[in-house]
Amino acid sequence: MVTLDELTSALGGRLLGNPDTQVTGLAGLAQALTDQLTFLSHPKYVSELAKTQAACVIVSPAHADLAASRGACIVVDDPYAYFAAATRWWRHKFGPAYPRGIHPTAVIDPDAEVHPSASIGPLCVLEAGSKVGPQTRLSSRVTLGFGCSIGARCIVHAGVVIGADGFGFAQSQGRWEKIEQLGHVRIGDDVEIGANTCIDRGALGDTVVSDGVKLDNLIQIGHNVQIGAHTAMAGCVGVAGSAKIGAHCTIGGGAVVLGHLELVDGVHISAASVVTRSILKPGHYTGIFPIDENKSWEKNAASLRQLYGMRDRIKRLENPTTDTKLQD
Amino acid sequence: MVTLDELTSALGGRLLGNPDTQVTGLAGLAQALTDQLTFLSHPKYVSELAKTQAACVIVSPAHADLAASRGACIVVDDPYAYFAAATRWWRHKFGPAYPRGIHPTAVIDPDAEVHPSASIGPLCVLEAGSKVGPQTRLSSRVTLGFGCSIGARCIVHAGVVIGADGFGFAQSQGRWEKIEQLGHVRIGDDVEIGANTCIDRGALGDTVVSDGVKLDNLIQIGHNVQIGAHTAMAGCVGVAGSAKIGAHCTIGGGAVVLGHLELVDGVHISAASVVTRSILKPGHYTGIFPIDENKSWEKNAASLRQLYGMRDRIKRLENPTTDTKLQD
Amino acid sequence: MVTLDELTSALGGRLLGNPDTQVTGLAGLAQALTDQLTFLSHPKYVSELAKTQAACVIVSPAHADLAASRGACIVVDDPYAYFAAATRWWRHKFGPAYPRGIHPTAVIDPDAEVHPSASIGPLCVLEAGSKVGPQTRLSSRVTLGFGCSIGARCIVHAGVVIGADGFGFAQSQGRWEKIEQLGHVRIGDDVEIGANTCIDRGALGDTVVSDGVKLDNLIQIGHNVQIGAHTAMAGCVGVAGSAKIGAHCTIGGGAVVLGHLELVDGVHISAASVVTRSILKPGHYTGIFPIDENKSWEKNAASLRQLYGMRDRIKRLENPTTDTKLQD
Repeated sequence: MVTLDELTSALGGRLLGNPDTQVTGLAGLAQALTDQLTFLSHPKYVSELAKTQAACVIVSPAHADLAASRGACIVVDDPYAYFAAATRWWRHKFGPAYPRGIHPTAVIDPDAEVHPSASIGPLCVLEAGSKVGPQTRLSSRVTLGFGCSIGARCIVHAGVVIGADGFGFAQSQGRWEKIEQLGHVRIGDDVEIGANTCIDRGALGDTVVSDGVKLDNLIQIGHNVQIGAHTAMAGCVGVAGSAKIGAHCTIGGGAVVLGHLELVDGVHISAASVVTRSILKPGHYTGIFPIDENKSWEKNAASLRQLYGMRDRIKRLENPTTDTKLQD
Repeated sequence: MVTLDELTSALGGRLLGNPDTQVTGLAGLAQALTDQLTFLSHPKYVSELAKTQAACVIVSPAHADLAASRGACIVVDDPYAYFAAATRWWRHKFGPAYPRGIHPTAVIDPDAEVHPSASIGPLCVLEAGSKVGPQTRLSSRVTLGFGCSIGARCIVHAGVVIGADGFGFAQSQGRWEKIEQLGHVRIGDDVEIGANTCIDRGALGDTVVSDGVKLDNLIQIGHNVQIGAHTAMAGCVGVAGSAKIGAHCTIGGGAVVLGHLELVDGVHISAASVVTRSILKPGHYTGIFPIDENKSWEKNAASLRQLYGMRDRIKRLENPTTDTKLQD
Repeated sequence: MVTLDELTSALGGRLLGNPDTQVTGLAGLAQALTDQLTFLSHPKYVSELAKTQAACVIVSPAHADLAASRGACIVVDDPYAYFAAATRWWRHKFGPAYPRGIHPTAVIDPDAEVHPSASIGPLCVLEAGSKVGPQTRLSSRVTLGFGCSIGARCIVHAGVVIGADGFGFAQSQGRWEKIEQLGHVRIGDDVEIGANTCIDRGALGDTVVSDGVKLDNLIQIGHNVQIGAHTAMAGCVGVAGSAKIGAHCTIGGGAVVLGHLELVDGVHISAASVVTRSILKPGHYTGIFPIDENKSWEKNAASLRQLYGMRDRIKRLENPTTDTKLQD
């Protein structure tokens, strides 16, 4: 339990209302109980402001009067960013602490380098020549392959595999001959990597994940891929080998990016879309089959197989004379 | 090896034939050898009944006479459910036993609670405040995050991660600022979770998996998701944050459910379909591009880009006068 | 650092140029530095040959003269296969060695069999009755379930789960009753399995992965699946239960193969395609919605829902008389 005074002393913001008001947790506008802190991040939710039971609401200056008329509020320029900071402050104050150092069950090669301020959780494996930067945390059961490195202030969740072999084979007389993957994985600062995500080592050069990248769970990053700074990918994305993805991109959940493509900075791919060509213009791109009742889908999907023919038939209907000539 | 007498004494059913007949295993109707037990669950396979070599067939009353005419049979109302029970009985009798208690290599926080009848396999990690209910089994290498709980009689397969951070960030000046995930994961009774599946902790509230839910391998469940009782999801499904999925739903393999959607009870999603909107009517929904020979697909896919234009052209062909006016 | 003499003494090939030339690594044609070895595998890159800075280029006889005119080269029939062999030789010479035997942190059931030449990495789990063949390597954190076997010279990357239960339930009064999975997983020789991939045990019979199969990361192989020899699957593929996939097939990343289907030998599935029917003719098959700017996609996707109707309208335009009759 904290007072609003404690909170604003730590995080700033202009407090309107009683500084001794106590809050016991954070919650959404609609769900908040009478002893919780909440926030209004978007004007479209302003109608919920009057109805919320929250002890205190974080608002922008535009909503200060309205919020103050119902109770305590904290006025800041960016309520969502302030709320995010409040969750971090709260977690740090009340959540379980991550001990610095290496858990005794982790398996650390004598040639691995771990910064003294890093935290290596239970049952992690750090192979020879791997490096973990300051304040970076490996949750539990993370494998960091030989020669691979992670920068500062990263969070790597359970089950992540960094530096498994890329998928490289030469076909020879109907068999696949292994191409040893001689590169590494280099991960920048402030990167977060979700549970059971895999990032393969490069074939000859390195796979590179730049500063500030956020990867969700169960993502596959192929060998030699380069991901630009502050790009975010949602769960279950697959990026094939040697794709080059720009900075400040977002890739929706379950999307697939084929190999050897380039996406420039500021490209946004909708969930489950398949990127089959380079995208050289920033923007929002989509390619999914719209979901429908199965019966309707079946009819439309069957017609889809004849789409090319339909186009021809329209052409003939539009140009009946030409068509006759063609048929002569 | 067991006799039919032993089997029916344990599991019930009306045995027609010699109770001393011995069976050494279970198998499908077509594959069964002369010393195996099999079942006929659906009338469409009735023609295989005469051909099976099985020592004994589990059948419904409707097929009792036919089955008895070829050899021993067990007559029950629901042959498939009886067969399922037989596999469980068989496994319990002959399979490797799962020892109660905690494997010495598991890493258990002193503040975790494990029911004495639970089984925690090798190299699992239970963080502070996590709870495992009676008769629940964690196979091996499972991570259960702080404050997360699992009910009774659950089975959690190898590599599962429960309670990693949800994917929550506030964008601020081109960077992603972490929103700490303060909620937990609550899993009901009789839930099964497949290998390497991930269930993220809630942002503020909890992620909830209700009683009897069955999740296959490599599934991603985002933060705050709620899954209703007895819903089943096949492998590689991704459910984005705050989706609310009803009871008795089935989600086919590789399907994607976007965030903040609602699926009511009794919704069935075909494999690989993408749910982009709430589905408020029970039923069967599909949205996949039909597979075709690559050459045909290329032609149809190219036409697809012009589909909107084709619709317009049909409209103009249907209304030539209007069209002329528009062109004036 | 090695001399070209050392390299060709080990791997063969006709060396043109100074055998004492030293190389410090391998690289692509465009990236290679002056002390690196590279290769020309495809005539379309021949223009880069003159520009490469590499110390030595592996080429086919057709390009020997051109390559020799710019510096040292190794002439072989199949430059790509030779390059692959060079990576393996290099890795063996300079990479970290994988020690034979069992890492002390691995958890090995007394009834598991591990060939003395195999390498079992840290924190692996081998259950009762599992078998690992000669020269096979389990990287780290691999689970091999009871009764499952792996052949010779396989590589299994971190986080792989072999032999978790297949997804089998009988529905009974709205609940899912578990069908115990009584089969095993049998993996042949020279198989490679990528990080966090899962291969489920069979329900009654076995799941079978034949010799020379290569599976990338985060792949799901359902129970009873059979995969023919030398078939390769890219990352994030899902194969549902009882599918039978032939030999020498390739399945692109993120593709889904539904259950109980058959794919004959030599079938190639494009990335992210969904195989909904058996494919009995070798060839290349595709089924993905082409990606587009979101605005265009929205218009085309909306039209797609009316595709069946559009086909009818074209029919009516083509047969106006018939249409009139129908409307009478």
